[in-house]
Amino acid sequence: MSREGLTRMTKVEVVVDGTIAPQVVDLFTHAGVTGYTAVSNVSGLGHGGYHEGRLLFNDQSALGMLITVVPDDQVDALLAGVRTLLGERSGVMFVSDVYVSRPEYFTT
Amino acid sequence: MSREGLTRMTKVEVVVDGTIAPQVVDLFTHAGVTGYTAVSNVSGLGHGGYHEGRLLFNDQSALGMLITVVPDDQVDALLAGVRTLLGERSGVMFVSDVYVSRPEYFTT
Amino acid sequence: MSREGLTRMTKVEVVVDGTIAPQVVDLFTHAGVTGYTAVSNVSGLGHGGYHEGRLLFNDQSALGMLITVVPDDQVDALLAGVRTLLGERSGVMFVSDVYVSRPEYFTT
Repeated sequence: MSREGLTRMTKVEVVVDGTIAPQVVDLFTHAGVTGYTAVSNVSGLGHGGYHEGRLLFNDQSALGMLITVVPDDQVDALLAGVRTLLGERSGVMFVSDVYVSRPEYFTT
Repeated sequence: MSREGLTRMTKVEVVVDGTIAPQVVDLFTHAGVTGYTAVSNVSGLGHGGYHEGRLLFNDQSALGMLITVVPDDQVDALLAGVRTLLGERSGVMFVSDVYVSRPEYFTT
Repeated sequence: MSREGLTRMTKVEVVVDGTIAPQVVDLFTHAGVTGYTAVSNVSGLGHGGYHEGRLLFNDQSALGMLITVVPDDQVDALLAGVRTLLGERSGVMFVSDVYVSRPEYFTT
């Protein structure tokens, strides 16, 4: 697979209660991200909030998924912020490698 | 990029006809996942169901995307289950590396 | 983590203004993809279009996220097409590794 002309960065996805989504966006901003994508119409269960071992459909609540991509030197600040925000909440954060073109778009 | 304090796990994304989404959730449950995220308002074509080489907008149908994250020792059971479910259907499964904080949230 | 029986391919996610989404799908088709997933109800800011350093909620616009998976020999053509399409637009493209079962579903 050719990754020629692409730059590796870090993708951070946060799934939280919809009411907390604006706080995640605010946190993204303070961590210096240049953009984000928000997916609404998201529902789910857990991870963490529900450890009963059974997933009930009526436990579903309106969630938001917020996605951003940052260069290496911004990852630590961003992750620290998200961790603090999620500290006492049941949201989850997924961190993964991603390759982008136009890396200057993701750099402040 | 710092992955300090993060734990590698496996992200499994399944895109299926919306009518089958509850079966995927049920399968997740039996495989021992502690949570999942469901994205509605998803449409698409293929992969596999349509090999005409042309993608027609009126072929779109209501799909569901189900996302879960599991530790290594649960991956095989989960993938086997999804494969069996998708056996004669046109849904797709995407498997990728992901890093999470709070790994205990993803472990039963 | 067992990746036995899975095949590595490349996942390409494109987030663009909703009005451009059909052009992305058309581009996918011409690059020979066998399927795609479209997520609607997506909003966001940047990356690239907005470099003011502040993210305002009223800057959100209706976006579309298009996801496809291709084998190695189709990656270059697909990426070239997306880059050209995004050339003067603020959309973003995320490229990542993904593992799939049934690789024949992703091959024309």
